[in-house]
Amino acid sequence: MRTTVGWQADGSTTTLRRVPLERRELRPDDIAVRVDYCGVCHTDVHAVRTHTDEGGVPLVPGHEFTGVVAEVGAEVTRVAVGDPVAVGNIVDSCGVCAMCRAGQENFCDEFPTLTYGGTDRHDGSTTLGGYSREYVLRDRFAYRLPVGVDPAAAAPLLCAGITVWEPLQALGVRPGTRVAVAGLGGLGHLAVKLATALGATATAISRSPDKADDAVRLGAHDFVVSTDPHQMSAASNRFDVVIDTISSPHDLGPYLRLVALDGTLSQVGYLGPVTVRTTDLLVGRKKLTSAGSGGRPATAAMLGFCAEHGVTADIEVLPSARVNEALDRLHRNDVRYRFVLDMSDLS
Amino acid sequence: MRTTVGWQADGSTTTLRRVPLERRELRPDDIAVRVDYCGVCHTDVHAVRTHTDEGGVPLVPGHEFTGVVAEVGAEVTRVAVGDPVAVGNIVDSCGVCAMCRAGQENFCDEFPTLTYGGTDRHDGSTTLGGYSREYVLRDRFAYRLPVGVDPAAAAPLLCAGITVWEPLQALGVRPGTRVAVAGLGGLGHLAVKLATALGATATAISRSPDKADDAVRLGAHDFVVSTDPHQMSAASNRFDVVIDTISSPHDLGPYLRLVALDGTLSQVGYLGPVTVRTTDLLVGRKKLTSAGSGGRPATAAMLGFCAEHGVTADIEVLPSARVNEALDRLHRNDVRYRFVLDMSDLS
Repeated sequence: MRTTVGWQADGSTTTLRRVPLERRELRPDDIAVRVDYCGVCHTDVHAVRTHTDEGGVPLVPGHEFTGVVAEVGAEVTRVAVGDPVAVGNIVDSCGVCAMCRAGQENFCDEFPTLTYGGTDRHDGSTTLGGYSREYVLRDRFAYRLPVGVDPAAAAPLLCAGITVWEPLQALGVRPGTRVAVAGLGGLGHLAVKLATALGATATAISRSPDKADDAVRLGAHDFVVSTDPHQMSAASNRFDVVIDTISSPHDLGPYLRLVALDGTLSQVGYLGPVTVRTTDLLVGRKKLTSAGSGGRPATAAMLGFCAEHGVTADIEVLPSARVNEALDRLHRNDVRYRFVLDMSDLS
Repeated sequence: MRTTVGWQADGSTTTLRRVPLERRELRPDDIAVRVDYCGVCHTDVHAVRTHTDEGGVPLVPGHEFTGVVAEVGAEVTRVAVGDPVAVGNIVDSCGVCAMCRAGQENFCDEFPTLTYGGTDRHDGSTTLGGYSREYVLRDRFAYRLPVGVDPAAAAPLLCAGITVWEPLQALGVRPGTRVAVAGLGGLGHLAVKLATALGATATAISRSPDKADDAVRLGAHDFVVSTDPHQMSAASNRFDVVIDTISSPHDLGPYLRLVALDGTLSQVGYLGPVTVRTTDLLVGRKKLTSAGSGGRPATAAMLGFCAEHGVTADIEVLPSARVNEALDRLHRNDVRYRFVLDMSDLS
């Protein structure tokens, strides 16, 4: 086994502690990545807060990170030692099912191997995430980071970015498309940037009126305060696509009413069960969908698009030793717009 | 006032009785239609069974009927006395909102005037439906019945037909599209016929194995028994479009799992609130939508398509005096596939 160091919750507490971690020896198609920057996702907060219910399995979060290839397996040709790479929330899949063959490894019929809390397909071990100094994974699930992209600000693209990129692409967002983004957090601020870079007109919707200036700076053409019934009413039936990034349970009705005839609301922020009035879909033939992460081709395309258009996340970088502070503040939505942990303090 | 006769529930009982009815004198843009055939819709069953909760307002159901123009208002030029026409579940709308201007009068911002139980936009009266010998409506909401179409078998096209035509059109069903139709009743059997006539491959899904032969006769290429987990599992991720016509509350999960990558389930049979697991939408980026009735252009197009392709409903015609029997049997789903009342016994 290889050894590294990382931030772990031990199954009995929600506080992460710095501990030595084991990584597997490289298989022929594996690479080892020195993790430089890892984004802090709402999923991490949720995982840390609930993992104590799972029977005390130790948890190392982190599924959007960038770094440099430190070592390659015998058969690896895609990348070489020293290459800057990025890794998202999937590190393996069956590779042969219809979804994998369609490049949608995130929908693998046999379930993709998640970057943390997943089960390795070969040795059955539980995967430990990117809040660590080194990560070992199958080479094909590491993406070359395009030249010139800030590796810290790019880390959140690998989860928050691809999660909103997928519905923007699947729903055909292009110049002229009227996009609304509900919730202006880690996902939402990237949805505004990406929609705008795709040529769409983006409207940001937030319960926080004080985010109006930020929304414009991010590229939004308009800003709607969700708690103002007049503003919400004036926005009804106006958007071809609504990307709902709100991370807590909420009534979808007010957001479905913003969707135009034959338009679509994609819920990407909250993934629990959802109840809708059928009439909120029927009147205007509106569609409800969801998305989460993406396949390999889409992830690579998203990174290329972001490099070309200068899109990265707005981040607050903290030394990884302040990980517990980051998780607490994210839980309170006290971040604009994504925490990124600098892992150099683990060396 | 004009007088006619029809079948009415008086607000205190769920039994319809033959009573004299008043119709308004013709306005300049009104026509009077002699109703010959009126289909019996699940909505009628529901309305009759619940109207006693509404404070005793008398109810005359019926919102899919065909007949002949009996008289025209002073300014009517669209149709003439003697023309065969068909009427659906909308008899007026504001005409000026964005939805009306888009030809989606069924989504009128000011709510369309329903054929029964609606409120007339001019005199405020409650509309009385097509279970009667004469109906008076604004000329533009009557559709000319194409030559050669059986007026009895065409009556259900005006509600059941347009309700499934709308999602088939909105979802781009064409040759090669893989369509599944869940529920093989009034709506479902027409969805199979229309999807097949559009060139799609249609699979019928029913809990009744004894409908397999019928499904093939209706044009289905395949038949799946919904209570057989093996058949349902084998059908997973196979359909671009699922039209769910099941009229009672049910778990959408098993039907969403039939939808292919980026495909859509349109729920048209049950219009109450619905709860879905977000992961059933997320995995495969599946869309949930709904539809109900249609606008004027779509209704006219649907009638023309049906005439061209010989599509009408499979019906059981009963004299209108047996209306209560028809409602009871429909409530038990004991009909293949739509009751149509012959109104000639009201003369």
